[in-house]
Amino acid sequence: MITKTECCTIKSEDIEDAIVLEGSPGVGLIGNIIGWLLVEDLKMKEIGYIESKYFPPLAVLYKGVAIHPFRIYEGDGIVLFLSDFIVPPNVVYDMTGAIVDWMDKNNSKELITFNSMVVREKSQATAAAGNTENATKRLEDMGLPILPFGNINGLSGTLLTQCASKNIPASCLFAEILNPYPDPRAAAEVVDILNKMLDTTIDPEPLLQEAQEIESRLKKLAETVQSEPESPIYM
Amino acid sequence: MITKTECCTIKSEDIEDAIVLEGSPGVGLIGNIIGWLLVEDLKMKEIGYIESKYFPPLAVLYKGVAIHPFRIYEGDGIVLFLSDFIVPPNVVYDMTGAIVDWMDKNNSKELITFNSMVVREKSQATAAAGNTENATKRLEDMGLPILPFGNINGLSGTLLTQCASKNIPASCLFAEILNPYPDPRAAAEVVDILNKMLDTTIDPEPLLQEAQEIESRLKKLAETVQSEPESPIYM
Amino acid sequence: MITKTECCTIKSEDIEDAIVLEGSPGVGLIGNIIGWLLVEDLKMKEIGYIESKYFPPLAVLYKGVAIHPFRIYEGDGIVLFLSDFIVPPNVVYDMTGAIVDWMDKNNSKELITFNSMVVREKSQATAAAGNTENATKRLEDMGLPILPFGNINGLSGTLLTQCASKNIPASCLFAEILNPYPDPRAAAEVVDILNKMLDTTIDPEPLLQEAQEIESRLKKLAETVQSEPESPIYM
Amino acid sequence: MITKTECCTIKSEDIEDAIVLEGSPGVGLIGNIIGWLLVEDLKMKEIGYIESKYFPPLAVLYKGVAIHPFRIYEGDGIVLFLSDFIVPPNVVYDMTGAIVDWMDKNNSKELITFNSMVVREKSQATAAAGNTENATKRLEDMGLPILPFGNINGLSGTLLTQCASKNIPASCLFAEILNPYPDPRAAAEVVDILNKMLDTTIDPEPLLQEAQEIESRLKKLAETVQSEPESPIYM
Amino acid sequence: MITKTECCTIKSEDIEDAIVLEGSPGVGLIGNIIGWLLVEDLKMKEIGYIESKYFPPLAVLYKGVAIHPFRIYEGDGIVLFLSDFIVPPNVVYDMTGAIVDWMDKNNSKELITFNSMVVREKSQATAAAGNTENATKRLEDMGLPILPFGNINGLSGTLLTQCASKNIPASCLFAEILNPYPDPRAAAEVVDILNKMLDTTIDPEPLLQEAQEIESRLKKLAETVQSEPESPIYM
Repeated sequence: MITKTECCTIKSEDIEDAIVLEGSPGVGLIGNIIGWLLVEDLKMKEIGYIESKYFPPLAVLYKGVAIHPFRIYEGDGIVLFLSDFIVPPNVVYDMTGAIVDWMDKNNSKELITFNSMVVREKSQATAAAGNTENATKRLEDMGLPILPFGNINGLSGTLLTQCASKNIPASCLFAEILNPYPDPRAAAEVVDILNKMLDTTIDPEPLLQEAQEIESRLKKLAETVQSEPESPIYM
Repeated sequence: MITKTECCTIKSEDIEDAIVLEGSPGVGLIGNIIGWLLVEDLKMKEIGYIESKYFPPLAVLYKGVAIHPFRIYEGDGIVLFLSDFIVPPNVVYDMTGAIVDWMDKNNSKELITFNSMVVREKSQATAAAGNTENATKRLEDMGLPILPFGNINGLSGTLLTQCASKNIPASCLFAEILNPYPDPRAAAEVVDILNKMLDTTIDPEPLLQEAQEIESRLKKLAETVQSEPESPIYM
Repeated sequence: MITKTECCTIKSEDIEDAIVLEGSPGVGLIGNIIGWLLVEDLKMKEIGYIESKYFPPLAVLYKGVAIHPFRIYEGDGIVLFLSDFIVPPNVVYDMTGAIVDWMDKNNSKELITFNSMVVREKSQATAAAGNTENATKRLEDMGLPILPFGNINGLSGTLLTQCASKNIPASCLFAEILNPYPDPRAAAEVVDILNKMLDTTIDPEPLLQEAQEIESRLKKLAETVQSEPESPIYM
Repeated sequence: MITKTECCTIKSEDIEDAIVLEGSPGVGLIGNIIGWLLVEDLKMKEIGYIESKYFPPLAVLYKGVAIHPFRIYEGDGIVLFLSDFIVPPNVVYDMTGAIVDWMDKNNSKELITFNSMVVREKSQATAAAGNTENATKRLEDMGLPILPFGNINGLSGTLLTQCASKNIPASCLFAEILNPYPDPRAAAEVVDILNKMLDTTIDPEPLLQEAQEIESRLKKLAETVQSEPESPIYM
Repeated sequence: MITKTECCTIKSEDIEDAIVLEGSPGVGLIGNIIGWLLVEDLKMKEIGYIESKYFPPLAVLYKGVAIHPFRIYEGDGIVLFLSDFIVPPNVVYDMTGAIVDWMDKNNSKELITFNSMVVREKSQATAAAGNTENATKRLEDMGLPILPFGNINGLSGTLLTQCASKNIPASCLFAEILNPYPDPRAAAEVVDILNKMLDTTIDPEPLLQEAQEIESRLKKLAETVQSEPESPIYM
């Protein structure tokens, strides 16, 4: 199926009744780190990609094969929208529209997106927020601390409000991070919550074990990201 | 009802014969501070929002629920257009057209917008200006000092002139501020005037009590606003 | 009558056979200073305005009433196009087309525009230039020194050449200024010339009397003008 | 005849079988200096101009009369496209298309354009290049040193390749300059070559005589040009 | 045949069943250096060029003749797309579409593109990656080290993914470079691999012999490349 808006095109298989996850890089790279872990752990299959002339020109190497920088995966009834670059702000509104249209046509059950929260000290608890009072209540009932006030930017923010307009429940999980660098440990904590929400047994161990190694590798990349807002990033 | 211009869309219930208030963040955040107070004090109901691909990608958390960054509220015959980000200058003209069209179709009685005036010393008096000689005379008759000369920028300015073109009386209230930081005390003084104009009893006490607390929280936000005009903000 | 181009709209009454003056702010603010003086002295009536989504969002306060930032006035057979902001360079070509169309349809007799010339020492003489050999000869016959070579930027420049294409005679008067700050004294000298050309008795006294006061008020405005990177430069 | 492209319009008389020269300001202002000399020496007649909303808003004063900043002249079977500002890079491709269309329709014989080459020491020889092997051979046969490798930017470069697409022979003459300032002496050397190519007797003496005077006057202007790439320049 | 997209046009002869090489300048100028060597060594014939109003205005001198800055050559069943400027990022997506359409219509066998990899120490081995598992396996079977992870930006990246969408096998060869300067030695190593892939005997000797000379000439060019803010970065 092809879903088009003015500035981007989704070319993807149709997956009915899925839970949709979105993992695009933000501060801390949480969504991107979780996304790659899920692809590996759930052995997800690539079912499509998003194309746009407004994306940075970029291919991503995965096991020596060049793949699209914004891919769509599926596994166990879960659909994952995974990008390896920061979606340019002027594309976000339109792309969100394309993703939510895809979900609407495919009768997706709900959306889960990831974000981060810079804190002075970690409380060891992943905060959450929903896109309706019911969605938020459900998260509260799961024992998650609710983030009452604040701003949610990027794809996360527009996905929450546009899903609400189509009556699709959506949640955002906020990893606690101490600084703007990629943080696989914080991502691992979010994975624990995700396992509860999805009733999965995704193993966050790779993130914890490789944390140090990943941290040093990503730190260099993150510095590039900081200094050049529009440039592609890769884990 | 949907009101569309080239760059933005108003999706909102129709409210006939309302007094319309506009509160978008400017220097001192006066309109935004007053807007949030009114939502709480008058227990206003969200009746719609404005959408635009030219807005920064952003959702706002309110009691743990993600809401649109530019919302429309109603309560006691008052309609409030409330945004939590600085409307990009290139969108202002078109968006003003959409708001004034909405008012025209809904037979709105008048518009009140907020602005600020940086002064060396506070005179304890909120100045005002109208969009016709009659509108200004009415403000003068209420005992308000009139701001004779100067420039009014942002949504305030274009709303005043475009309302005049549709024969809708409009006023602008100027809070006195000492510096460009958010100033709930200055906003509280404007609320006193607003109570006279609207014949309401909105209690500015929360602003005064929480002034110090709000000041420190908003100071951080304002710095972000100052340094990156188009970028999304996160708490 | 409505005159439209791709980027702006003139909404104005029709005035036949008028002499048209244009006063938009340039270095020295000459045109703007003279424009405001004429509005007061000739008790000119506002007959319309120019609107554009490419203008900065702005209203101007005049005696406590918010007015359009680019207005059109009429009095004694003289029409004045008066703006209170620097017209963005990318709008100038199109707007000039709209103004010249308006003049063509209304059979305007001639156009007079204002500019300035930074000199080391004032010669006490306002230089002039025309848009055809005849137009220049007429200025010479009036005893005005002719500026032989140089560049004329902003609305002044494009108005001169586009008027020539429609066979409308046009002149530009160059005030001598010592620095880029607003200069009511230099404007007063231009008013003397203007009185000859228009056969009027506009009193430049207010400019001379208030020079010091105006100088301090306008200096602040000029600083804004200075910092805008796209502002027109002259010779 | 009117020749239009998406971004500019040529309004000009038709001149059949002409040799076309193009003189727009580049480093050293060579083309512009030569163009003005030709207008004077050959007593060329203005036959039209190029208009574009993408040009800087500008008129040029010539003997007290405001003229278009990009004019077309004719004299002795030679047509000259002469601009007094640097054509903005985003307009060059389209404008070149309009000029080459005009030449194609008017059966122009050939095109000569001017450029410069910054050298450490002058060799007293103007280098040349053509847009086909034949064109280059002809220049070589005239005893001109050929510039074998390098880049030709601005109107010069695109005119050469687009003329080739329409089978119009074209040459570029490169003045040797020591620094990026306007260089009438270097232009005078190019005039010697031009006299051979056109079989004319244009006198470069005014350039040599006034070199010092022009140099000091232009130096100031050139500094402006250096610091503000998009601003209008004038000889 | 003319292949058009929204922003560029390919004007070229048709060459069926070719192996297509792409050489546009990136960090190290590898593709561009190899491209020019191939033109000389294989005595390739210019069969067309790519035109776009979004290209910088530029002609390139080759043996005293001005040629298009983005040319297409053919020789021995090999087609080469060779540009002498960095393709602006906003044109890359569309231009890639035009090139891949051309390949699709002309039944091209495969695509080979060039990139570079900044390393601390040279391993004397050119790494490679393909656009499908088969393409990568073939490169591995040729004894080439495979680059497992990373980003491929510029034309290289988008050509790989868009070729995959049309089922055209494509490979990218990564020269090892120590710094971002032009590196003919690194290019020479890639030529050795290319000879295996194409079954050719292109002599890299000129690159090795002239390395020093070329290095100094290209260093100047590279500095220009460095200062351009929009230039692509790689890993």
